[in-house]
Amino acid sequence: MTETTSESDPRHADQDVAGPSHVIGLDFGTESARAILIRPGSPRVLASAVHPYRRGVVQGRLAGQTLPLAFALQDADDYLLATEDLIRRIVVHLPPGAEVAGLGLAFTSSSPLPTTGEGDPLSRRFPDRPHAYVKLWKHRAAAQHAQPFQVLRDLEFYGGSSSPEWLPAKALELAAEDPELWAQASRFIEAGDWLVWQLSGQEVRSTTQAGYKAHFRYGQFHEKIAEALGDRLGPDIPQPPGTSAGRLSVDWQVRTGLPNRPQVAVSAIDAHAAALGLGLIQPGELTAILGTSACYLLSSDMEQAVPGISGVVDGGIIPGLFGYEAGQAGFGDVLSWFVRTYPALPGCSEGESFEHYNAQAALLRPGEHGLLALDWFNGCRTPLDRGDLSGLLLGYSTSTSPTDIYRALLESLCFGARRVLETFARSGVAVSRVVLTGGLSEKHALLVQLLCNVLGRPLEVALGEAASARGAAIHAAVAGNTCATFEEAASQLADTRTRAVTPDPSSLPVYERLYAAYLQLSDLMAGTTVMSDVQALASEVRSLQSVQLHAGVSR
Amino acid sequence: MTETTSESDPRHADQDVAGPSHVIGLDFGTESARAILIRPGSPRVLASAVHPYRRGVVQGRLAGQTLPLAFALQDADDYLLATEDLIRRIVVHLPPGAEVAGLGLAFTSSSPLPTTGEGDPLSRRFPDRPHAYVKLWKHRAAAQHAQPFQVLRDLEFYGGSSSPEWLPAKALELAAEDPELWAQASRFIEAGDWLVWQLSGQEVRSTTQAGYKAHFRYGQFHEKIAEALGDRLGPDIPQPPGTSAGRLSVDWQVRTGLPNRPQVAVSAIDAHAAALGLGLIQPGELTAILGTSACYLLSSDMEQAVPGISGVVDGGIIPGLFGYEAGQAGFGDVLSWFVRTYPALPGCSEGESFEHYNAQAALLRPGEHGLLALDWFNGCRTPLDRGDLSGLLLGYSTSTSPTDIYRALLESLCFGARRVLETFARSGVAVSRVVLTGGLSEKHALLVQLLCNVLGRPLEVALGEAASARGAAIHAAVAGNTCATFEEAASQLADTRTRAVTPDPSSLPVYERLYAAYLQLSDLMAGTTVMSDVQALASEVRSLQSVQLHAGVSR
Repeated sequence: MTETTSESDPRHADQDVAGPSHVIGLDFGTESARAILIRPGSPRVLASAVHPYRRGVVQGRLAGQTLPLAFALQDADDYLLATEDLIRRIVVHLPPGAEVAGLGLAFTSSSPLPTTGEGDPLSRRFPDRPHAYVKLWKHRAAAQHAQPFQVLRDLEFYGGSSSPEWLPAKALELAAEDPELWAQASRFIEAGDWLVWQLSGQEVRSTTQAGYKAHFRYGQFHEKIAEALGDRLGPDIPQPPGTSAGRLSVDWQVRTGLPNRPQVAVSAIDAHAAALGLGLIQPGELTAILGTSACYLLSSDMEQAVPGISGVVDGGIIPGLFGYEAGQAGFGDVLSWFVRTYPALPGCSEGESFEHYNAQAALLRPGEHGLLALDWFNGCRTPLDRGDLSGLLLGYSTSTSPTDIYRALLESLCFGARRVLETFARSGVAVSRVVLTGGLSEKHALLVQLLCNVLGRPLEVALGEAASARGAAIHAAVAGNTCATFEEAASQLADTRTRAVTPDPSSLPVYERLYAAYLQLSDLMAGTTVMSDVQALASEVRSLQSVQLHAGVSR
Repeated sequence: MTETTSESDPRHADQDVAGPSHVIGLDFGTESARAILIRPGSPRVLASAVHPYRRGVVQGRLAGQTLPLAFALQDADDYLLATEDLIRRIVVHLPPGAEVAGLGLAFTSSSPLPTTGEGDPLSRRFPDRPHAYVKLWKHRAAAQHAQPFQVLRDLEFYGGSSSPEWLPAKALELAAEDPELWAQASRFIEAGDWLVWQLSGQEVRSTTQAGYKAHFRYGQFHEKIAEALGDRLGPDIPQPPGTSAGRLSVDWQVRTGLPNRPQVAVSAIDAHAAALGLGLIQPGELTAILGTSACYLLSSDMEQAVPGISGVVDGGIIPGLFGYEAGQAGFGDVLSWFVRTYPALPGCSEGESFEHYNAQAALLRPGEHGLLALDWFNGCRTPLDRGDLSGLLLGYSTSTSPTDIYRALLESLCFGARRVLETFARSGVAVSRVVLTGGLSEKHALLVQLLCNVLGRPLEVALGEAASARGAAIHAAVAGNTCATFEEAASQLADTRTRAVTPDPSSLPVYERLYAAYLQLSDLMAGTTVMSDVQALASEVRSLQSVQLHAGVSR
C-alpha cells in the first residue's frame, strides 16, 4: 500500500519536458490517499503512490472516551502528512528540468471540519473533543440536525431532502452538542476545500462541494444555510471546477521538494473526479461506482428534478453540464454483512466466503431459489430517499439455503440499480451508456454479469485504475492552464479503456418477472408504515436501554 | 427408546384386580409407537413401552428407486410388529388375575393405505411400488389431486379447502399414478382404522378419522368422495369415538400374550387423543401441541365456520361436542431450519445451537432487534389456508445478527399462534384456557415465555407425558365399558397437571405494537400476488430444470 511505482525512468525521458509540463492528481479516500504524476498529452501514469492515514478513521474511542456508534472522525493533520509524503515520493520521478503546472485534489465529501480564521483545525487545540475533528462522510450522528433544512426551496433538486450527512447538518450538530467549540469555529469547511487553503494559502471553496453538500445554487448559498453558518462559510463565494485557488505556497514547495509552485485547483468530490478520470463526460454517460454503497454519476444538458437523487449541480462534474448524483445506500456492505453473518466455513476469511458463495450461487438458475429481497439494508436513497426503510427477504421455506439468500441479495442490488437507471429515464434524463467502476466491478464477476442480465442491456467495466486521482489530475491540467477545457484535458488524460459485458438472453424473461415483483414489493413497503413502525420501536427500545445503561454507569 | 418402565410392581398389587379392570392405550406416532397400561380409577401409568418402527419413515429411496422429495411412506406391517412387541412388554406388568377391558389406538392421520378386501396391505404383494405403501400424513405429493374436492359443499367447515394431505387426494394420486395398483385396491383406509381391523377382525372405521380427513359429515361421506372411492371406503359407515369394533381376535390374543380378549376401540387421531389425555375436554379449553408444526384443538358447544381451520367435526374429540382443529403449518421446523442454517459454532449439534441462541436471544429486549417476521415458511394454515405464501423477514440492517433473526422467528411463531386464537374468538368460538403440550412446550422455555407475553394472557404447560397414549387408554376405557362416558374416563385417567406461566407485563406494550405490525404485514402480503408469483416462478424454473435433467439422463 505504500509502494511508489513509476512507469518510466525519468533519466531516459525522450521528449521535451522542460517547463510546467506535468500535473499531479491527489485522491483523498476514506482509509488512504493516493497521488499520481502524469503528463498531459498521454494518459500514461508516470508515477503513483499510496499513503494510508496515520489515524485512519477514528471510531469507537477518542482520547480515552467512548464515541457513539454513528461517529466517524478523521484528523485533518493526516491529510497534510499524506500530501507531503506522496508528493515527495512522486516528485523524484519528474524528468530533469520538468515542472508541475497544476495540482488537483479529489476528496471524500461531505467531510467538514471546524477551523480558526487562519485555517487551523480545532482538533489541534482541542484534541479531546470529538466535534473538533473532521466528520467523515459516513459520520451518521447528525440525523436530527438536518431537520431545519427540510423546508428549503429547490429541495427537488436534491432528491427531496437535505441529508444529515451533509455539511449544514454536521455544523448544527457541532453547534448543539459542543456550543463552546462552535464559538471557537470561525470556519466550517469541507476537508477538500480546507486542504486547498492549506496548500495555496487561499480559502477558495469549490462549487462542486458547496453545490452537492451545502445547497449552493445559482451563485449563492440558501439563506437558511447562510443564516445558520454565517462567516463560517468563508469570505468568498465558491469557485467552479478548474479554477485555480492560487499557486502552491513557498512553504509547501519546500516541504514537498517540488521544483516550482504549481497552480492548486479548487477541490473535487472523489466520485465525480472518477467519472472524469474515466472520460465519462458526455451527456448520457453514466458512471456506476460500485463499492460499499453504489454511486451513480451522470451528466446532462438538462436540469430535472429526479426523485431521490443526491443532487443535480450545474457544473457538478464539468462546467457546462448538469451533473447528477444518485445512489443505493447499501451495496457492497450488504454482501459483506452476508458473509460475516454466514461464513462459508468455520473461521474462514470474508474473501474465502465470497469465493465459496460466488461459486455456489453461479450454479443457481434465475428464479430457482424462490426468494425476493429488497436491498434497503441502509434505507433507500434513489428514488425514495427514505432512511426509515429496511432490508427485506421473502420466499423463505425450510429448504432455503444460505446460497439462495446470497443470490437473492445479489439480485436485489441489481434490481435497485435498475430502478435508479429507470428513475433517470422516467425523469427525462437520458442514459446512453453505462460504465461500471469501483471495487466490486473489478472483483465480483458474478455480480457484474447479474447486473447486466437484470438491466437487460450491454454494460462496460472500466479497466482504468485510480480513476479519482486521474480525475484530480485533469482538474490540475485545467487549473494549471496545460489544457484549455475539461473536454480537452479528459481527451488527453482520461483512461477510457473498458471491457464489454453482454446480457444472457435466456435469463431476461425471468428477471423481467422478478423485477416486476421487486417493484410491486417496493411500492407496497414504501406505502405502508410497517417498516418505519418497527424501526421506530427499535430506536425507542434502544434509547431507553442506553438511558438506563447510562444511569447505571453514573450511579 | 425401547425400555419398558413400570411404576408399580404387580406382585405387590394391593387391590382387587381380578376381571377386566385395566386398559391399554397405544399411540402410533411418526417414528415410533408407544403403549401404556393403566387402571381406570387412577391416572397412574402402570407400565409404558416404546417401539421405534423397523423401517421408520420411508423417504428418498424404495427398493432401489429414487422417490420424489415429497414422498413419505410407511410399511403397515411395522405397526403389527410394534403392536405385538409393545403389548407383550407391558402385559407382564398386569397384576395376576387382572384382565384388560379395552384397547385404544391413537394414530397419525391422514395416513392411508390400499389393501385387499381382506385387509392385506398391497405393499406385501407389491413391495417395489411406492403407491402400495402407507402415505404418511406428511406425504406431500398429492397436491394436484385435491383439486376435484375444492368444490364440495360445507368446505367452510374445513377452513375453506380440502387438503392434498388428506385421504381423498392421496387416493386419487394412487389412481392416477398407478392405475394397475388402484384396480387391486379393494380398500383405501386410514392406517389407524386398518390396525383396528387387523386386531379385531372387523373393518370398523372411525368418524373422527373420516370426519377430519375424508369429509364425512352428518352420517355420510360427501357424494364426490363416495363416487371417487366407492367400495374402497369399506362396507359400513364409520362409528363414533368410544365404539368397540369388536373383541381382539384369538390370533392376536395369542400373539400378544394377553390373558383375555379386550374390546378394541375405533381409532382416534393422535393429536385429538392428546387433548383427551390431558383432560382438556370442556368447551373453551384449547390444547396447543407445539411440535414440528403447531396443532390447536378446541371443543365447543357450537359449530362455526372458522377461517383456515383444518376442520370442525361433531364428536371430533369427544361425543357431544364439536371438535375444532387449527394449526400453523410451520413451527418447530422453522427453528430447526434456523439452527441448521446458522450453526452457533463450527460443527456443533442442533441442540448446542439452540442452547447458544436461546441464551443470547433471552438477553434481547422486545422490539430491540428491529425485525419483523412472517412465520409462513410452510405456508399459512389458520386463518388463511394458503400454501402459496412464504416466510418473510423485514427490518434487516448491516448490523442485524443471527440472534436477532432467531428471536424475530420465535416471535413470529408467537404472533401466528395469537392470530389462531383470535381467529377462534372472532368466529364466535370461545377460548377460556390455553394449555401447551408437545416437544417445544417442554424443552423451549424462552419460546413458551415469549408466547405468553405475546398472547398477553396466562398459559399453562401440561406436565403429563405420553398424552396421546393416555387419550387412547381413555378410548379403551369407554369402548371396554370400564367407564360409561368420555367425561368419566377422562376424570379418572387424564393427567391434568400443569404449570402456570404468566406474561411479563413490561413487554406487553411492545408486543401489542409488533403484533399490530404483524397483522398489517400479513394483510399486505396476503393481499398481493408477490409471494405466489415468486413461488410460481421458482416452481416453473425447477420443473423446467428437472425436465431438462431428465432429458439429459435419458439421452
